[in-house]
Amino acid sequence: MKVIHYTDVEAQDLTVAGPGVSCRVVIGKADDDVNFCMRVIELQPGSQVPAHTHPWEHQQFYHSGVGYVVKDGEKVSVGPGNVVYVAPGEEHYVKNTGDEPLVFVCLVPKTAPEM
Amino acid sequence: MKVIHYTDVEAQDLTVAGPGVSCRVVIGKADDDVNFCMRVIELQPGSQVPAHTHPWEHQQFYHSGVGYVVKDGEKVSVGPGNVVYVAPGEEHYVKNTGDEPLVFVCLVPKTAPEM
Repeated sequence: MKVIHYTDVEAQDLTVAGPGVSCRVVIGKADDDVNFCMRVIELQPGSQVPAHTHPWEHQQFYHSGVGYVVKDGEKVSVGPGNVVYVAPGEEHYVKNTGDEPLVFVCLVPKTAPEM
Repeated sequence: MKVIHYTDVEAQDLTVAGPGVSCRVVIGKADDDVNFCMRVIELQPGSQVPAHTHPWEHQQFYHSGVGYVVKDGEKVSVGPGNVVYVAPGEEHYVKNTGDEPLVFVCLVPKTAPEM
């Protein structure tokens, strides 16, 4: 069993995103027998992950902060307790619109890159 | 894309646990192409999920409230931002020790029961 706080893991730049976006791989291939990978993404105020697609799913849980995602071309607000499922191949975007970091968990299957 | 709040999903009793423990399947087999399943578990104050094992992993992110898990026979406090990985076959236990619900995300592979 592993018990950590997500901030125990060093934050790395998220390559797909611009400045102010970091990623921590909190459960991944370094752990035994994982079928998927848990990352914690943190967007500083005003930061965004540009619209992009990839052939793997995302499962996201929003922990703190506020912002929006884009669904069918419309902005949809997200904040603590929101859940987002992005199907394989689906375009997705997220922006922090608040004064605090926007922090969410984002899981990918083990066949996807961890970062 | 699906965007919901976890409380939009009806809470169900978690069969493995005692009273005061509910489970919401927020992303699961009803969604296309999932490789794993996201549940949100909520323990009312004083409630617990008894020690148990199963042949699939858990990946957990603690969202709100406080409590503890048991690792190697020792209590380890958990609260907002904690991450727990339970390997397949590993015994695990969690208890709410606070005055508010203990809410955490708990993911399982698609080969496991959703509830």
